[in-house]
Amino acid sequence: MRTLSSELRREKMIGFVPTMGFLHGGHLSLVDRAVSLSDIVVVSIFVNPEQFGPSEDFLTYPRDFGRDRRLLEEKGADIVFYPETEDIYPPGYSTYVEVEGFDTTLCGARRPGHMRGVATICMKLFNIVKPHLAVFGEKDYQQAVMIKKMVSDMNLDMEIVTSPTVREEDGLAVSSRNRYLNEEERRDAAVLYRALLLGKKLIEGGEDNVDEVVGAMEKMIEEKKTARIEYIEVVNSENLKLTERIDRPVLLALSVHFGGARLIDNIIAVPEDAT
Amino acid sequence: MRTLSSELRREKMIGFVPTMGFLHGGHLSLVDRAVSLSDIVVVSIFVNPEQFGPSEDFLTYPRDFGRDRRLLEEKGADIVFYPETEDIYPPGYSTYVEVEGFDTTLCGARRPGHMRGVATICMKLFNIVKPHLAVFGEKDYQQAVMIKKMVSDMNLDMEIVTSPTVREEDGLAVSSRNRYLNEEERRDAAVLYRALLLGKKLIEGGEDNVDEVVGAMEKMIEEKKTARIEYIEVVNSENLKLTERIDRPVLLALSVHFGGARLIDNIIAVPEDAT
Repeated sequence: MRTLSSELRREKMIGFVPTMGFLHGGHLSLVDRAVSLSDIVVVSIFVNPEQFGPSEDFLTYPRDFGRDRRLLEEKGADIVFYPETEDIYPPGYSTYVEVEGFDTTLCGARRPGHMRGVATICMKLFNIVKPHLAVFGEKDYQQAVMIKKMVSDMNLDMEIVTSPTVREEDGLAVSSRNRYLNEEERRDAAVLYRALLLGKKLIEGGEDNVDEVVGAMEKMIEEKKTARIEYIEVVNSENLKLTERIDRPVLLALSVHFGGARLIDNIIAVPEDAT
Repeated sequence: MRTLSSELRREKMIGFVPTMGFLHGGHLSLVDRAVSLSDIVVVSIFVNPEQFGPSEDFLTYPRDFGRDRRLLEEKGADIVFYPETEDIYPPGYSTYVEVEGFDTTLCGARRPGHMRGVATICMKLFNIVKPHLAVFGEKDYQQAVMIKKMVSDMNLDMEIVTSPTVREEDGLAVSSRNRYLNEEERRDAAVLYRALLLGKKLIEGGEDNVDEVVGAMEKMIEEKKTARIEYIEVVNSENLKLTERIDRPVLLALSVHFGGARLIDNIIAVPEDAT
């Protein structure tokens, strides 16, 4: 892959979409974006063990390479990079990339080692695929902000492009983990986007108290009996630091368990006096 | 520099020698090596604050860009990359590369953060200079082994070449820090290489007990009244792990203070039955 990329990069603009496979409409929208911005589109499929905690769903994470490959062909991706775990992390592997400051809020604070695992695999894949640009989804907002920071700090010769979250008709963000939901949980999960819209509306209507906003969202989500909230946080939308009063653009982000599925989602809210 | 490197890399083999400046015969031998192996030779001069501890000599580390530049021109280097500290570490900088397992022996164990600082600056410089190969001196043996491991783990498209330590007539390894020595310390410092040769001779004569080898070297060095030993260690020459019995090739490495100068040196010893 690296040899091929070196050749291609001489003449062509390479766009890259790193994924963990089991592709859905969200991934495919990233591929569309990459196709529109580049000459050659590379999509990687690699379920990265380094970004899963010991009690998380690495082993059960859904996989279906045959289906992924067909979908990517239809979408006009040129190359699917599908490495083996042992090729990416051979025995004795020991080098990690850490972007400091991302382990105190949102998913970084709840999943020790997750952010380091994501930074490390992205650096490795960037070095192999040598893209001019890589496309990340805004659903994993914290990840996208961290990778942008890593690319800038590490002087990588590429750009990070982000693309909006794709949603089902009832507002649920599409995710490979939605397949873990039973019928009731699936129905209940639609509350997440409604709660985000509520928080956004409160903030854009003048509410500047974080506790009020989070409390209202919590109340709405807790009405669903299959929901178990992990976090609802309001952070500065640029540096993802916790904010006390809402006086500039913020990210409302949440993680909620429904049965065996941990779902995340987020939205940007801009208070009136900050626009 | 990165734009220039991208252009050059299409047609030319780029060799790279990263340095902290105040060049001496050791650096210049690395440049010779790079010139012999590549079409274009880039030398960086950057005193990297991230690899100095708070009580170390970052501020007093010798600098003389004018002289360095002349020497490099004479040697046939093509490009001198001489960035400002603020360009390499702008405000808010927060991304680090860590190669695990290098902080338990040798300099890694005595200089907290040093190895991380070296890995991080090398990754950044490699991303900017985009070399096909980089040349490191064997005097900083641990550094060279770590960077090789980083390049392999991080899938960087380049090779690390190492080049032998250059010595003064009395055996002292040339180093920018030798200029900290007064006349007496300079004379005493020649004991380091003699102690390394003694250790090597013992091992190659059949001594397999680490304590015996280290004890003999210690005794020789302690005869010099300006010497203050920081460490003398015998480690596996491949993975730099501490060894108990000497039954395979080892690295004898030491760090000794003479006045305000902390000097390091090393030698490889191969026991008879391991050859």
